[in-house]
Amino acid sequence: GLAALVGDLHEADLGEIIGALDADERPLLVGLLGDAFDFSTLVELDESVRVQLIEDLPPATVAEGVRDLDSDDAVYILEDLDEAAQDAILDTFPAAERLSLERSLDFPEESAGRLMQTEFIAVAPTWTVGQVIDYCRETEDLPEDFYEIHVVDPGFRLLGTVALDRILRAKRMQAVGEIVDEDRRTARATDDREDVARIFERYNLISLPVIDDEDRLIGVITADDVVDVVMEEAEEDLRALAGVGDEEISDTVWYTTRNRFLWLLVNLFTAFLAAGVIGLFEDTIAKIVALAALAPIVAGQGGNAATQTMTVAVRAIATREVGRFNIARFVNREIMVSFLNGAAFALLVGLAVWGWYGERQLGAVIGGAMIVNLIAGGLAGVAIPLAVDKLNGDPAVISGVFVTTVTDCVGFFAVLGLATWWYGIV
Amino acid sequence: GLAALVGDLHEADLGEIIGALDADERPLLVGLLGDAFDFSTLVELDESVRVQLIEDLPPATVAEGVRDLDSDDAVYILEDLDEAAQDAILDTFPAAERLSLERSLDFPEESAGRLMQTEFIAVAPTWTVGQVIDYCRETEDLPEDFYEIHVVDPGFRLLGTVALDRILRAKRMQAVGEIVDEDRRTARATDDREDVARIFERYNLISLPVIDDEDRLIGVITADDVVDVVMEEAEEDLRALAGVGDEEISDTVWYTTRNRFLWLLVNLFTAFLAAGVIGLFEDTIAKIVALAALAPIVAGQGGNAATQTMTVAVRAIATREVGRFNIARFVNREIMVSFLNGAAFALLVGLAVWGWYGERQLGAVIGGAMIVNLIAGGLAGVAIPLAVDKLNGDPAVISGVFVTTVTDCVGFFAVLGLATWWYGIV
Ligand SMILES: [Mg+2]
Ligand SMILES: [Mg+2]
Ligand SMILES: [Mg+2]
Ligand SMILES: [Mg+2]
Ligand SMILES: [Mg+2]
Ligand SMILES: [Mg+2]
Ligand SMILES: [Mg+2]
Ligand SMILES: [Mg+2]
Ligand SMILES: [Mg+2]
Ligand SMILES: [Mg+2]
Ligand SMILES: [Mg+2]
Ligand SMILES: [Mg+2]
Ligand SMILES: [Mg+2]
Repeated sequence: GLAALVGDLHEADLGEIIGALDADERPLLVGLLGDAFDFSTLVELDESVRVQLIEDLPPATVAEGVRDLDSDDAVYILEDLDEAAQDAILDTFPAAERLSLERSLDFPEESAGRLMQTEFIAVAPTWTVGQVIDYCRETEDLPEDFYEIHVVDPGFRLLGTVALDRILRAKRMQAVGEIVDEDRRTARATDDREDVARIFERYNLISLPVIDDEDRLIGVITADDVVDVVMEEAEEDLRALAGVGDEEISDTVWYTTRNRFLWLLVNLFTAFLAAGVIGLFEDTIAKIVALAALAPIVAGQGGNAATQTMTVAVRAIATREVGRFNIARFVNREIMVSFLNGAAFALLVGLAVWGWYGERQLGAVIGGAMIVNLIAGGLAGVAIPLAVDKLNGDPAVISGVFVTTVTDCVGFFAVLGLATWWYGIV
Repeated sequence: GLAALVGDLHEADLGEIIGALDADERPLLVGLLGDAFDFSTLVELDESVRVQLIEDLPPATVAEGVRDLDSDDAVYILEDLDEAAQDAILDTFPAAERLSLERSLDFPEESAGRLMQTEFIAVAPTWTVGQVIDYCRETEDLPEDFYEIHVVDPGFRLLGTVALDRILRAKRMQAVGEIVDEDRRTARATDDREDVARIFERYNLISLPVIDDEDRLIGVITADDVVDVVMEEAEEDLRALAGVGDEEISDTVWYTTRNRFLWLLVNLFTAFLAAGVIGLFEDTIAKIVALAALAPIVAGQGGNAATQTMTVAVRAIATREVGRFNIARFVNREIMVSFLNGAAFALLVGLAVWGWYGERQLGAVIGGAMIVNLIAGGLAGVAIPLAVDKLNGDPAVISGVFVTTVTDCVGFFAVLGLATWWYGIV
């Protein structure tokens, strides 16, 4: 039957099928699959699809399905539900499991504590390799997958880890304390998941122990989940720079529209600001109509150059590539680049305008405005992300609006102000 | 001495120190460290720093250092060197190692074959768990880290894998053929690394076997390296959208300037195109100077809305979220969103212009142009990335230029054309 057809699918593939079904067919399919439905499939669904499906399923089915999951997957599913729905599920759990999941949910959103699984193997340094192997052979309730054995002291503080391949290489009589890798990175449960991802990237890890405030081992984060995090966070930054927020492709038209509206509204205000700058110079434009065509070139070119600088700055901040030690060097470099490209485009555009309109002076005015605006854009492109970061904002989300506002206003003001002054218009 | 001071550092930390040194100090530090210098540190350096440092080190030192590395790290270092430098190193290697590395280097750049390590453990299905453990205990030359045992037939075709934790759980007498996971994803050596990353993300993997054209197992890709790939690729897309290319923070001012210049030059051409559209309507602007301030609002708002749509489209294409089955739904959704936001901002801007200038008709013209431009932007935002992808281009790299050219030209044309027609200007 159906269970045989889809039961062999990987949960990711089944998740894709569920996502492609109509919303009212999804609980039907899950119901038909019965016990053959693996709730880890829910982890693979878009958030909106998952939350709706859980609402549509019988609470007892959900509770039973979630109980079978690794704690990190259970937390991933629970964290998007409201408190009542969470409690309804957790109340059916044995006290120890409930407490453990509640503790994970108490850690901040997107923290290491949310990402970790609380299933892991921890042994004393006096255990031998043989004991570890026998323990793994005899214990029913091991973590679903694991890659390291954790070595802890009596207070459950982490002494180090032993990768499974080290266990396989070692003789049975060897104590794990002798082959333990003591130089292990750890994450605090309250660390942001982006910091966790950076630790994985930097130290090329497969798993990372998580410790609490008293340095006790409380969980493990694995690389497969970090791959998801890195993709999501990169996606988030990219969308933030474009003002798309955290929408998913399965969101409704209406939700998506509202989501994008706000960003466009903010940009509209800044556009009126720039229009106000142009409005100051209506007399100049009436006299030299060509400026109406040329000013947007200077404003736009400044915006593009500033966006380049800003993107580099935003990423350098996000990846901690720029810190206290090299910030001066970084800012200097960006200003130099802005100056050089400003000079190049001042020359190019100046000549082009001269050629187009046959007016050398107009070319000089536009060229002068161009270099001014590209330098202003370079300054804004580094200063604004750094300032936003200093104020604990997310540079990716808001820098773009400010930066292009600067280049629009400065660009229009430079062109029209310079022309007004040069041609002596009053 | 120095070796004791930095010898205990993780190669990532030592790499950071080397990156912070002046270029002429780097080979000195490596020389001082001598045998204590782990060449995997080179993997952690920016490409420009790495290539320069290798040039500055004695060739024999480099050859010896690279030989100690896992093949994937060796390939990572070799692939950036020119052919002569590659040969100089490879010629010092034993034939088997040289051939294996040369084969990896023959795979396309950014392919699975470049990313895989050729060190792995493969056994026949008839081996017992005990034999595997004994093999690991007795063999000197095992891969540096491994997470799975590969099970192959006599033709070296992959039958499946056994994760090390399954080995630990199983009894010594059990045949690996009985506990093998046959339902394993694989990558072809010629697959793009972005497809590899998507497989890891989708199926939550720690390692992935790589097979050649005859389905023979030839390597393994591990999740730690995939984390690097995902970060790099996301970075690349982000920078492509902003027109920054593949610059690194350690590049020179001059290199960075040239790198960004080209993109700005392309944008400058398109800006002149838009200026040309404005130039067509000089008479209209001379009569209604306010249009010079208002047209950029419409053009800019269209550009922002189109960038939102384009970013979603670029990512949906890159992650294969949009495919043949749901493309119509996706395009429909984006057009609907563009229409709704177009209507909203037409109303808002129309009213604002009416209020600002006290001219209801001017408000109607700007509002009408706004909805036209937001819909055009939505169409361009989906159509251009899809077309670029169809033509086998990278949507992230070139879509942005085209999309904002459309919204600039349509925006200016809509405002000025509508005004010219409405007010009957000839
Ligand atoms: Mg979530
Ligand atoms: Mg975050
Ligand atoms: Mg790394
Ligand atoms: Mg997990
Ligand atoms: Mg997972
Ligand atoms: Mg983030
Ligand atoms: Mg790297
Ligand atoms: Mg490379
Ligand atoms: Mg690529
Ligand atoms: Mg995943
Ligand atoms: Mg590797
Ligand atoms: Mg590596
Ligand atoms: Mg790419």
